[in-house]
Amino acid sequence: MSKKIAILGASGYTGAELVRLIATHPGMEIVALSGERKAGMAMGDVFPHLRHLGLPDLVKIEEIDFSGVDLAFCALPHATSQEVIKALPRDLKIVDLSADFRLRDPAEYEKWYGKPHAAVELQKEAVYGLTEFYREAIREARLVAGTGCNAAAGQYAIRPLIEAGVIDLDDIILDLKNGVSGAGRSLKENLLHAELSGGTYPYSAGGKHRHLGEFDQEFSALAGRPVMVQFTPHLAPFNRGILASAYVKGDPEAVYKALADRYASETFLEVLPFAAMPSTRSVAGSNFVHIGVSGDRIPGRALVVVALDNLCKGSSGQALQNANLMLGMDESEGLMLAPVFP
Amino acid sequence: MSKKIAILGASGYTGAELVRLIATHPGMEIVALSGERKAGMAMGDVFPHLRHLGLPDLVKIEEIDFSGVDLAFCALPHATSQEVIKALPRDLKIVDLSADFRLRDPAEYEKWYGKPHAAVELQKEAVYGLTEFYREAIREARLVAGTGCNAAAGQYAIRPLIEAGVIDLDDIILDLKNGVSGAGRSLKENLLHAELSGGTYPYSAGGKHRHLGEFDQEFSALAGRPVMVQFTPHLAPFNRGILASAYVKGDPEAVYKALADRYASETFLEVLPFAAMPSTRSVAGSNFVHIGVSGDRIPGRALVVVALDNLCKGSSGQALQNANLMLGMDESEGLMLAPVFP
Amino acid sequence: MSKKIAILGASGYTGAELVRLIATHPGMEIVALSGERKAGMAMGDVFPHLRHLGLPDLVKIEEIDFSGVDLAFCALPHATSQEVIKALPRDLKIVDLSADFRLRDPAEYEKWYGKPHAAVELQKEAVYGLTEFYREAIREARLVAGTGCNAAAGQYAIRPLIEAGVIDLDDIILDLKNGVSGAGRSLKENLLHAELSGGTYPYSAGGKHRHLGEFDQEFSALAGRPVMVQFTPHLAPFNRGILASAYVKGDPEAVYKALADRYASETFLEVLPFAAMPSTRSVAGSNFVHIGVSGDRIPGRALVVVALDNLCKGSSGQALQNANLMLGMDESEGLMLAPVFP
Amino acid sequence: MSKKIAILGASGYTGAELVRLIATHPGMEIVALSGERKAGMAMGDVFPHLRHLGLPDLVKIEEIDFSGVDLAFCALPHATSQEVIKALPRDLKIVDLSADFRLRDPAEYEKWYGKPHAAVELQKEAVYGLTEFYREAIREARLVAGTGCNAAAGQYAIRPLIEAGVIDLDDIILDLKNGVSGAGRSLKENLLHAELSGGTYPYSAGGKHRHLGEFDQEFSALAGRPVMVQFTPHLAPFNRGILASAYVKGDPEAVYKALADRYASETFLEVLPFAAMPSTRSVAGSNFVHIGVSGDRIPGRALVVVALDNLCKGSSGQALQNANLMLGMDESEGLMLAPVFP
Repeated sequence: MSKKIAILGASGYTGAELVRLIATHPGMEIVALSGERKAGMAMGDVFPHLRHLGLPDLVKIEEIDFSGVDLAFCALPHATSQEVIKALPRDLKIVDLSADFRLRDPAEYEKWYGKPHAAVELQKEAVYGLTEFYREAIREARLVAGTGCNAAAGQYAIRPLIEAGVIDLDDIILDLKNGVSGAGRSLKENLLHAELSGGTYPYSAGGKHRHLGEFDQEFSALAGRPVMVQFTPHLAPFNRGILASAYVKGDPEAVYKALADRYASETFLEVLPFAAMPSTRSVAGSNFVHIGVSGDRIPGRALVVVALDNLCKGSSGQALQNANLMLGMDESEGLMLAPVFP
Repeated sequence: MSKKIAILGASGYTGAELVRLIATHPGMEIVALSGERKAGMAMGDVFPHLRHLGLPDLVKIEEIDFSGVDLAFCALPHATSQEVIKALPRDLKIVDLSADFRLRDPAEYEKWYGKPHAAVELQKEAVYGLTEFYREAIREARLVAGTGCNAAAGQYAIRPLIEAGVIDLDDIILDLKNGVSGAGRSLKENLLHAELSGGTYPYSAGGKHRHLGEFDQEFSALAGRPVMVQFTPHLAPFNRGILASAYVKGDPEAVYKALADRYASETFLEVLPFAAMPSTRSVAGSNFVHIGVSGDRIPGRALVVVALDNLCKGSSGQALQNANLMLGMDESEGLMLAPVFP
Repeated sequence: MSKKIAILGASGYTGAELVRLIATHPGMEIVALSGERKAGMAMGDVFPHLRHLGLPDLVKIEEIDFSGVDLAFCALPHATSQEVIKALPRDLKIVDLSADFRLRDPAEYEKWYGKPHAAVELQKEAVYGLTEFYREAIREARLVAGTGCNAAAGQYAIRPLIEAGVIDLDDIILDLKNGVSGAGRSLKENLLHAELSGGTYPYSAGGKHRHLGEFDQEFSALAGRPVMVQFTPHLAPFNRGILASAYVKGDPEAVYKALADRYASETFLEVLPFAAMPSTRSVAGSNFVHIGVSGDRIPGRALVVVALDNLCKGSSGQALQNANLMLGMDESEGLMLAPVFP
Repeated sequence: MSKKIAILGASGYTGAELVRLIATHPGMEIVALSGERKAGMAMGDVFPHLRHLGLPDLVKIEEIDFSGVDLAFCALPHATSQEVIKALPRDLKIVDLSADFRLRDPAEYEKWYGKPHAAVELQKEAVYGLTEFYREAIREARLVAGTGCNAAAGQYAIRPLIEAGVIDLDDIILDLKNGVSGAGRSLKENLLHAELSGGTYPYSAGGKHRHLGEFDQEFSALAGRPVMVQFTPHLAPFNRGILASAYVKGDPEAVYKALADRYASETFLEVLPFAAMPSTRSVAGSNFVHIGVSGDRIPGRALVVVALDNLCKGSSGQALQNANLMLGMDESEGLMLAPVFP
């Protein structure tokens, strides 16, 4: 029997992506969709690409009867999310896609997000949603915090290298090229087609991007000592995709082996042959991650490049993968869709 | 038990799209892939987005043992296709995606394609692949000829209007905006990103596009008299999608009713509310077609706009839909993937 | 000695385009720039591409001393423009880029723009700014009303055909493909890169676009009888450019001759060889217009395709061309920049 | 009196860009254009955006009478260029845009380009064309070797830092995001719109890109010791622009000061306020370079980001700037065109 699913915040891109993925999921059924400003609208009017699906209309969250709901995806803005989740039934399984429950330390949350957390007790309960590294905890979790999309890309490149002890922990540089859907459906001049297409530029440069909080938390825990990376995202004129170029110091062969070994049995993580490089186009529209490793003419340098779809594996696909685990389903259910190319 | 599928010409875009669709089709299994110049290569090297699938390597057609194959998709260039198909086993079910078997009249073929047809007897046998209008014949067919992508878009707009007798048959204008994947993986200067992005222009203007042969054949047969349309495609800087703007003379309400009635029970054809207009983005990556109808301030004028994905519904999705019928499967099997947006 | 120029509404795209063009104009100097919400900012902060120019900061209009100003470009939103211009010195030369003074008949203005005109007397004074057809009047004018960008594109296709009497006046269809900068710097979901890139769709379909008011006024005056065209614009994923495909009934050779003759001595209007088709990319960034004419296999049909840059020839370039005339300068001064390709 | 200019290899993008720039140059006149495969064609047929200019037709190089030519731009493929230039009159001033004369050491040339140099004596004569650093030598030169576009971008970021001694010479990482016109008009699958648009990927990763030869030569000469940088370019879906993100170790304020001081009097190089970041869109279509510097939360790290237009400042604009010097003209003549935005 199908599990009953609610999606809160369904009028944004990650909400729409969840609907797209669940549309062909054999074990889930969407029973409620919320959207504050667009409450009352048909989902097919908000997102015409979903009009063929027999979806419930958008409602306000308070109109949803959660008694029959097995799991709720929460695709709300951060800060809002913690308020909403605090008020939901305590036995409802929740996958949160916002930033609200990613950082376990309330002080770190306040440092990066600029105000105290409103649901500190839930913050403790939440399990970090990077599936391949928290799988067992996610299976048992009630509340899972989806990772930042950049944070996912960067961690797929670096975590196995820290685990294997093959790189210099004090010299990790992450240079990311980001598709624009990561910025959401925000009405900003720099996100207009007329301004974004045809070029690229860095943003949040200088160690200011909030996903650094996740890198700090995760890499330091893994290393057992503080690890700080240098991280610069660049906005580029495509809709889906993150390409993370990680510059590390270590033996390239050891770096390659650490990644290849760690991901050998992972369904969605593909380590390419040594020196082959990934492209975001080859994963767009899918839950797959392609990873390339190269050495350099300078000995002791390695380049690790990770490509993923920020909306899918970086957000909604990851969320669904986690929900599958939480509901006792096969982890890859509904997620084997091949990338769309060209 | 899964049907065994061969794809001839798998190194082009329509071949890759077939693989993408069949990847999640529960009743089909790909047993052979051919690619002349790329024979010997792994499909994942030709198309890295398909590397996670356990696909057979590309081979030359003559290396394929067709004895266990239930159906072959033929995604070869026109002219080549007729030579290849002529040499295939006569009991093999075939869906051809080329232009070779679309025109029933050898003289018409020669007129539009510039040389005599090399397999005239097969030309007679072939069933035209516009599923919603040739469904019963396709079910019984051995050889189905996929339609031109422009021809599909235009016919979805116009056929019901001819059937219902609601428009002036002598004044039909089709203005198309075409994504570039319709040109295939051709190495031409005008298809380079540097030259195509950022603008648009007409091509094959002046009644010279080969898909006119299909319009003539189909519309004239339907009307029982010669019908000629004026048709201008425009190349536009996107990868997937055809938007066909059809200017017709007739009562807009009658036009709307003819389309809405005709497609009411079709799974993939969605007629939008009157005056709502479709977008190619809302069908990209899927087998769905969105159709909008509007009147004008000038009485007796109607605008019908059809949006479809040229690679999917306009080509490989249509081919799979037909294959499903030919193999006795549910017509929509493997084709219910939702469009990808944004 | 340089003429002193003010640009009102300099924080929008047409304002920035005026600054770009005037930057290399030998006879003009920008002495004032206004921007309501961005008053106080440096122009180089609003538009970093202009930061190398020694431009005045943005101020509010009321802060500008117009006594030393020779000519003001008014690049404000419609409705605002009429209020602002009404309050400017009555001897100041003005080129208005808004819609406010394009329609000479107050009733037509109210019909298309939904409220009464606030400066009816100025409406009478204003000269319509389609340079090649109103050149002498523009030379003497104090107030020139820049045309709509679609209106310019359509008129370049059709006016000579009406003048020459070579087409059926009751069957003119204009199908336009429009770059997104024509929508201005508006914060709307459909103008976001994530939503606009990768596809196309019609807008203002069904005879509802306001530029129809200009077509009606101009074509009817020219023909000496009411002329109504059917006009559908389509938003397409590029920044600069309009491609107008005009479907007319008449002898293609006569159509070609009418255009070639009419534009033979025009600096910016290039009629391509018969059957050659223009591309927006070949005029982007410039004041040039390329025009192509083709016949059809259906006798008595002609296709006229016009390509221009909506921001330049369709708006700011046209404005500068008119300002040159009004100030007694060479019409093409500052406007001979070649298109940018690729 | 105008200087007489020949452009060899005018059918490629850098040739067309030279024509565009010279079109409004007051002191130059194009008297000959060569194009091997397109000899006999009108330039306006090869590049319709240049059709309004009264240009000579394309001819073969051997058809050109160089006796009246003051300067030739050589925009030919590398390897071809050295053969052609060797055969040109020895008193002809030449700006070569190929890679053939960038490396002074024949062994280095052979190492990076895979075969011995065919004009070693000219290699010695050639002056490296990075104008702001070789200005005086260029003024006296007969043969100037235009820099690689990536090499220009990287050197603008790093040279002043080496000169000022403010960074660790053994830890310089250059991560570039490159527009596709840098690849020229090459017919390759990965440059097709259908394949390049919508994503990004690294190329020539692992220390294999040929522009490394230029970095090695220039940085080592400057430092007086071997300097090797790690350099990875990424192809991104835009036509014009390079964004070079340089990760260096040094005090950010000292880094900023070194750049700001060095470029304070340069017309085309703009160092933005500290922590402000450049965008390729803000320089596209122009000869300007925008440079941003930021620190990091990790002390002793600095990020320098350089944006330039690869076709203009990275190639043809640089070439024209050098030609101006060689011909005794003002260095910025014909190059003050403002960037085109949006």
